[in-house]
Amino acid sequence: MTQEWRNVTVEKAANIYFDGRVTSRTAWLHDGSKITLGIMLPGEYEFHTNSMEVIDVISGEMEFLLSGETLWREISGRGTFSVPAHSSFKVKIHSVTDYCCSYGSAACENK
Amino acid sequence: MTQEWRNVTVEKAANIYFDGRVTSRTAWLHDGSKITLGIMLPGEYEFHTNSMEVIDVISGEMEFLLSGETLWREISGRGTFSVPAHSSFKVKIHSVTDYCCSYGSAACENK
Repeated sequence: MTQEWRNVTVEKAANIYFDGRVTSRTAWLHDGSKITLGIMLPGEYEFHTNSMEVIDVISGEMEFLLSGETLWREISGRGTFSVPAHSSFKVKIHSVTDYCCSYGSAACENK
Repeated sequence: MTQEWRNVTVEKAANIYFDGRVTSRTAWLHDGSKITLGIMLPGEYEFHTNSMEVIDVISGEMEFLLSGETLWREISGRGTFSVPAHSSFKVKIHSVTDYCCSYGSAACENK
């Protein structure tokens, strides 16, 4: 798994949601792929997608529920899940969760 | 003020302090300067410095107190303060604060 990204452009201002309990910073890889590097604090949150999203959990304890599903799935430590475009998902964060999100690509995993 | 940094290396794993109420992500500029891009949630925190730190508040409402001083100083919106090496400072965060910290340089301000 990539431990760092080289030759990226990082936006200065953070993305702040849910009173700061979910925050992220946007970066653009050399090939034009967008990623966001974020932190979710304990709580329950719902997100809506425009493009397909791949969420790569770097550390943390959480559950997620995809739209139209009834089974919450758990990630403890590392894990990855995908959400289709124009959909939504819910998360229950049990401990501080560090994540990378990519949009229509596997940019969190690949250099 | 710089709105983004180009050609940087970003570390994947976040730095997590105070149960996630203070988090940051480390980036290295092309000239070797280190910066951290972080978020502080409301609360009071104390930090210790190794090298000289320049904290550039991007957005937020906070007060800071440098070691050896008795006067809390306020930053509302944008502002910058410096902390000597091998020192400490306290902050009172009143609303979610987005910041950039540089170490012995002005890397948050300069490309």
